[in-house]
Amino acid sequence: MTPASPRVSIRYCTQCNWLLRSGWMAQELLSTFGQALGEVALIPDTGGRFEIHVNETLIWERKRDGGFPGPNELPRVLWRRFLSELSG
Amino acid sequence: MTPASPRVSIRYCTQCNWLLRSGWMAQELLSTFGQALGEVALIPDTGGRFEIHVNETLIWERKRDGGFPGPNELPRVLWRRFLSELSG
Repeated sequence: MTPASPRVSIRYCTQCNWLLRSGWMAQELLSTFGQALGEVALIPDTGGRFEIHVNETLIWERKRDGGFPGPNELPRVLWRRFLSELSG
Repeated sequence: MTPASPRVSIRYCTQCNWLLRSGWMAQELLSTFGQALGEVALIPDTGGRFEIHVNETLIWERKRDGGFPGPNELPRVLWRRFLSELSG
């Protein structure tokens, strides 16, 4: 992975049955960004956790960000992250 | 990630439009094995590549293994890998 192809990780709560939406998001991101992403990882966890990281940076946290990103927000939060990296 | 919760990675060819089946496999594995897995990563690639790794071990390669694993084979190849690790 080069800096140009970041790792996205989606950490979700298995007890809350969030695999379906997490799997959907992984596929949306890979469908949109393709090889601009190094990988998208799904990480099973517990305790109501739902977090999206780009490399080490937390870009979405369920409680902080008010639930889950939808089809409009999901690519936007990634674009925002990429642009902020480009601008240093 | 402990040794008890391995990383699975699925490397697929974007040009071949294998995201759909790769995303399905990721979700099947997470649905079956849950937190016994540390993570399942989807890795976009090119050139007709389709590979599944458990940690560093290649457990499925499209040309070697005759195409793609189906719903019966997919969990089996993982179980086989886990058992071989347990038996040293």
